Amino acid sequence: MLMNKAISDLKKTLTSKNVLTELEERYAYSQDASPGLKGVADVVVFAEDIEQVQHIVKIANKYKLPVICRGAGTNTVGACVTEHGGIILNFSKMNKILEINPENMTARVQPGVIVGVLQNEVEKLGLYYPPDPSNLAVSTIGGSIAQNSAGARTFKYGSTKDYIIDMLVVTAQGEILRTGSNTVKNAAGYNLGSLFIGSEGTLGIVVEATLKLIPKPQCSKVIMAYFDKLTDAANAVTSIIKQRISPSTIDFMDKNAIQTVEKFYPVGLLTDKEAALIIEIDGFKSSIEEQKDIVTKVLRQANASAIQYSSTEEEASKIWQARRSSMGACAKLKPNITTDDVIVPRENLPQLVKGIQGICDKYNLTVCMVGHVGDGSVHPQIPIDFNNKEEYKNYKLAKGEIYDLTVKLGGTISGEHGIGLEKRAYISKVVNSTALNYMREIKKVFDPNNILNPYKIF
Amino acid sequence: MLMNKAISDLKKTLTSKNVLTELEERYAYSQDASPGLKGVADVVVFAEDIEQVQHIVKIANKYKLPVICRGAGTNTVGACVTEHGGIILNFSKMNKILEINPENMTARVQPGVIVGVLQNEVEKLGLYYPPDPSNLAVSTIGGSIAQNSAGARTFKYGSTKDYIIDMLVVTAQGEILRTGSNTVKNAAGYNLGSLFIGSEGTLGIVVEATLKLIPKPQCSKVIMAYFDKLTDAANAVTSIIKQRISPSTIDFMDKNAIQTVEKFYPVGLLTDKEAALIIEIDGFKSSIEEQKDIVTKVLRQANASAIQYSSTEEEASKIWQARRSSMGACAKLKPNITTDDVIVPRENLPQLVKGIQGICDKYNLTVCMVGHVGDGSVHPQIPIDFNNKEEYKNYKLAKGEIYDLTVKLGGTISGEHGIGLEKRAYISKVVNSTALNYMREIKKVFDPNNILNPYKIF
Repeated sequence: MLMNKAISDLKKTLTSKNVLTELEERYAYSQDASPGLKGVADVVVFAEDIEQVQHIVKIANKYKLPVICRGAGTNTVGACVTEHGGIILNFSKMNKILEINPENMTARVQPGVIVGVLQNEVEKLGLYYPPDPSNLAVSTIGGSIAQNSAGARTFKYGSTKDYIIDMLVVTAQGEILRTGSNTVKNAAGYNLGSLFIGSEGTLGIVVEATLKLIPKPQCSKVIMAYFDKLTDAANAVTSIIKQRISPSTIDFMDKNAIQTVEKFYPVGLLTDKEAALIIEIDGFKSSIEEQKDIVTKVLRQANASAIQYSSTEEEASKIWQARRSSMGACAKLKPNITTDDVIVPRENLPQLVKGIQGICDKYNLTVCMVGHVGDGSVHPQIPIDFNNKEEYKNYKLAKGEIYDLTVKLGGTISGEHGIGLEKRAYISKVVNSTALNYMREIKKVFDPNNILNPYKIF
Repeated sequence: MLMNKAISDLKKTLTSKNVLTELEERYAYSQDASPGLKGVADVVVFAEDIEQVQHIVKIANKYKLPVICRGAGTNTVGACVTEHGGIILNFSKMNKILEINPENMTARVQPGVIVGVLQNEVEKLGLYYPPDPSNLAVSTIGGSIAQNSAGARTFKYGSTKDYIIDMLVVTAQGEILRTGSNTVKNAAGYNLGSLFIGSEGTLGIVVEATLKLIPKPQCSKVIMAYFDKLTDAANAVTSIIKQRISPSTIDFMDKNAIQTVEKFYPVGLLTDKEAALIIEIDGFKSSIEEQKDIVTKVLRQANASAIQYSSTEEEASKIWQARRSSMGACAKLKPNITTDDVIVPRENLPQLVKGIQGICDKYNLTVCMVGHVGDGSVHPQIPIDFNNKEEYKNYKLAKGEIYDLTVKLGGTISGEHGIGLEKRAYISKVVNSTALNYMREIKKVFDPNNILNPYKIF
């Protein structure tokens, strides 16, 4: 009833092509890349400018209806799946790069800008936007901000939060809140920006962001190191870190991941090895050989059984495409694919990797492990059939045990994917009750009617 | 009356040497490095552990008395000056480095740890804590967190907020809140950590912090470039940035700063030049010459009239000591010294520097300008005599005009020093009213009785 009134108001505010009410449309825009979470919005709207976002939020607030923002829907935790109907606010039409300022080394963008598109544009000017979520060919800056996305280069360059210096946010009341300034440092008042980043659209709606850019490294080289033992690969990470060099990435694929990728997207990975590290070094041309020699020496001492080096940008790019396609490849093994995102203090990585393998073996589940292991981060990808009840039950049990192991090793249940619906039940394992209470209070301050992506995170 | 009861409770909780009530003691611990702001606490207490902090806060909360935390008191905005008496909580006895974990590249510290001491300790292990506030020989990690301190190396490495991955915070109710995890990435729940960083002790009391460390750069070299025109120096900053290299610092001293430093702490700076840039390059040994050549070429094209290079670590360190002593040196020119902290988008730096000079000339004030100009950040240091009413009035007028200019150039009134009392009246110039309202609401959530460093920031 209220929803009908809201839809009528929305139709008065937006052009008809920007208000979708057919079931198949609503269904299509209500899914994300999370495993098995389903919901259907009552209406899907496209905003074309900030003012429209304000109108949409005011309508939602008037009728106390949920507003769930959506970029490309690549998140894996159900952060843009609605449990209680409501309005899906789609940002794909607010996808302009508004400004790239080479002298200030900043870019001002709308939330629907695709990460990979932005990276290409700034790189043409010798600049660099480091965060590189695996799905960067489609995922958006708005989504990156919502989930505080990271990626392989976080090891050297940090995650999304380290590159957002200013945002315009539409509040639950439809006001415009500015979080920062167009300067790389800001110590004037509370850092509201960082509060919105990673808040999964539950505190406010980011409608514009100013990003800090850095100079693009002159050169880079990818070193692919293979190991005959899983634990040798994990231990090699610690050995590289001990060398006090900063590769831009220390990434990881286990045997299942390598074989699955090679099966569906062949690029020439060595499929008889137990694990591989993908190490990218970057910097001044003059330093690449020095770094390569240091890394190679460590890898040999750490029992690498084969080492390959990219000699061109295309070769490097092919390796990364292979790594990034691992979830897509694993998805072909069974009707459904699940991915996870656990992270531990770096020194506990070997125990985490071994432990995940053990848990999956115990429950008779195939696991393809990839991860940004330089950060202590592992993504176990488990292909399953949700209709197979036994397998689904085992998956749920395995997942719980993986989280328990992660916590036991001093880690947390999300390094870069967020909590959403998928991990909501587990949040109290890793966030202390005092912190959770204050998070709930902050949610009430920004969203007293609980309309912004309600019931996510906690 | 209430205070007497509180002091009596404090004496029951702490040993007598940790509760100071004599006027001269209270006076001594109630000042900071801000210009002319004075206040006297009713009692000064030293905490030796987290539990004591909890007790102190609970006592303060019971009687609704202000608690003002204090590290070394080096902040320049009155952030630890009390306007309304209360309890100064001194952290100088909680100054232990609790753990340095080389494999995880983290350090866990108490808030009273001195930044420079921490840097030395981690560097012994080949690790690096980049934030380098000018007063790092005495200033503490707790103070750095309170003010989100930065420093010269922020240009390449970011500020304090980029290096804090976890904190234990005592809330206004005396609870323990944990903000993060011992992992370099964390996407589980709201980023409360970033909210506390830079909140100047108004939201909670940081009693322990886990810092992210990075590998120490193999080599570094300081390039000191002198210019005959102020604007040439400012323009050279843009030229360096255009080269798409990342020096670790692009710092600045104007003629007055150079001459004043050289007068009181002679290190051989060229005193006949209008301005100097202090550029530090770092990285792999093999890349230092390449970087040096690039920077040198740009500096020559940008009309540098003299260029010097450090050839040893000692030489580099001498130059930095000179730069860092500028405020101390300027303080010797007149009875009082004021420093400020304005920042603009990098491309507007030349206009800012020229504008500040013009404003100070107009009001007949001497200004020694230093700054982390690579970030667009300038610290105008104005030596004055507060007892000279005419001069003081001029200083106040100049200060307002400098802020107006900064805002006009798209900047903000604090890049790294904070707001405190000193800039409270100006905060609405740079933070929009919606953001300010939410900041006030957040303050109420964390500190409903307004006991934590009350009336600071806004």
